[in-house]
Amino acid sequence: MSAMSILTEAELRALVPLDHDAVACVEEAFRALATKAVAMPPILRLDIPQYRGEVDVKTAYVPGIDSFAIKISPGFFDNPALGLPSVNGLMVLLSSKTGLVEALLLDNGYLTDVRTAAAGAVAAKHLARADARVAAVFGAGVQAGLQLEALMLVRPIEEARIWARDFARAGAKAEELSARLAIPVRAVEAPRAAMAGADVVVTTTPSETPLVMADWLEPGQHVTAMGSDAEHKNEIEPAAIARADIYVADALSQTRRLGELHHAIAAGLVGADRHFPELGAIVAGTAAGRGTSSAITIADLTGTGVQDTAIATLARKRATAAGAGTVFET
Amino acid sequence: MSAMSILTEAELRALVPLDHDAVACVEEAFRALATKAVAMPPILRLDIPQYRGEVDVKTAYVPGIDSFAIKISPGFFDNPALGLPSVNGLMVLLSSKTGLVEALLLDNGYLTDVRTAAAGAVAAKHLARADARVAAVFGAGVQAGLQLEALMLVRPIEEARIWARDFARAGAKAEELSARLAIPVRAVEAPRAAMAGADVVVTTTPSETPLVMADWLEPGQHVTAMGSDAEHKNEIEPAAIARADIYVADALSQTRRLGELHHAIAAGLVGADRHFPELGAIVAGTAAGRGTSSAITIADLTGTGVQDTAIATLARKRATAAGAGTVFET
Repeated sequence: MSAMSILTEAELRALVPLDHDAVACVEEAFRALATKAVAMPPILRLDIPQYRGEVDVKTAYVPGIDSFAIKISPGFFDNPALGLPSVNGLMVLLSSKTGLVEALLLDNGYLTDVRTAAAGAVAAKHLARADARVAAVFGAGVQAGLQLEALMLVRPIEEARIWARDFARAGAKAEELSARLAIPVRAVEAPRAAMAGADVVVTTTPSETPLVMADWLEPGQHVTAMGSDAEHKNEIEPAAIARADIYVADALSQTRRLGELHHAIAAGLVGADRHFPELGAIVAGTAAGRGTSSAITIADLTGTGVQDTAIATLARKRATAAGAGTVFET
Repeated sequence: MSAMSILTEAELRALVPLDHDAVACVEEAFRALATKAVAMPPILRLDIPQYRGEVDVKTAYVPGIDSFAIKISPGFFDNPALGLPSVNGLMVLLSSKTGLVEALLLDNGYLTDVRTAAAGAVAAKHLARADARVAAVFGAGVQAGLQLEALMLVRPIEEARIWARDFARAGAKAEELSARLAIPVRAVEAPRAAMAGADVVVTTTPSETPLVMADWLEPGQHVTAMGSDAEHKNEIEPAAIARADIYVADALSQTRRLGELHHAIAAGLVGADRHFPELGAIVAGTAAGRGTSSAITIADLTGTGVQDTAIATLARKRATAAGAGTVFET
């Protein structure tokens, strides 16, 4: 007999909001990735093209953390037509010492949303100008809102623009975010106009063709691309990677295969084995971040298992402290 | 809100015994692997050497099956000293159409035990002589007993020998199995003596050095090696692979990297890209099985995601029919 605790999405939403603690937790995860003997195997990916479905499984063991998460992340893009969300899934938290299952976090993707947005905040904290005031967000989904919210935790954002393929959706999102975040947010019809004058640009789409063109980049801009987590996705024109003063990967082993970098390599603009700094090295201070106020910086976020282990461990710690969840004997 | 059912190990033991249905279910899984557009990504593997821990995650989508399993299989080999079992884990069953989690099978490795033993039966059914009467089993763990039990479902086994590094454990296991399976089972001190005159040999150990020597193989013998599921494990002398009349892989992509074949390739005895039949092709009749009664056959089983999807789907079907399990709203 062993016991595990089961936490539902509603419980996890109450326990782990997107806040400074969540950002700090993910920042520490990146620091660990750069400074400790983290074990982070390649992502397991299953595709079911018949139903436009894909599943990613991610994990990472961080020495010093008593547990590790295995995250199952399905995305099935015909679901909305069935009245279901595209993204679902859960995290399983296991003991690093015994492999026993400690908790099932039935978050339907919520913790992924938080740790992904938090990574955007970490990237902006270390790469965007300290006085970044204007944000441009590409996409009108859940991450579009969360990324803007996360930016506001680390930079003095005063206004935002939203561009999305569907202008009506961008408008609805802008209205929702203006109300929720208490800053002016407006929808913009052209991607270039959204970017013009923005200090921080965050792309959050599943686009398969570039939305951000190299020519549009302005001195001092920081771009975080977090939509590309698979070979066929591509938000940033490859020439932009070559043009940037600093390109930063969440995990170089992943961005070379799955991220924006992958397309720059495929286009022959960047050598396949060229070294770039990882976000964790910048957090840890072993690689340089933004140097000058005019530098153009790009962060390429594909999503890492250390973020999952970090946020799942935080969730369990808070659940234990609050006495939340259902204990299940097996 | 969505609902999933949670099944415990006790419930799963009652629902899915090792029987002819379990063997047929796994046999169909291998047939599907050979005949359908199965998606079976490489195994995700995480090692935590500090605690002698390893975790495998396996999955497979089989067209025509409404669900697919993702199995999390931890093995932590210091656990017995803590009074805990080495092997644990669970399976998550997801809808092939929507990716929604349908069931959590908290089996602590039980379903893996069943599907692994059933694969041994499938291999013997298609490769051992029809009149196989004498079995030799290497190892004294759970699989040693289950493999013998599985063999008896498909061949007229009348007696068995058990060899294990720890002779006392082999003796205890032999006594237990004699009583449970109602055939004479005796412990043997030397591996060679265990094999002499055996019609079927099954190796079930985590050995890192060969236990079965090429010279010991006798005409007509069938060997199933199921212990090696990682690069460093090795039960069969590489020369035995080269000597066998028929070598069969559960999945060639896996045995080339993880199985006994891997060591034969590393030893330079077999070309890295040499083709061998897979078990599913023999089940489907597209590759030849045992031809003559004097052939020496070897089956190399590393464990495949299709077996997990098949057994998990069977478990859920039976649970639904029996009204078993706990429904959990998330």
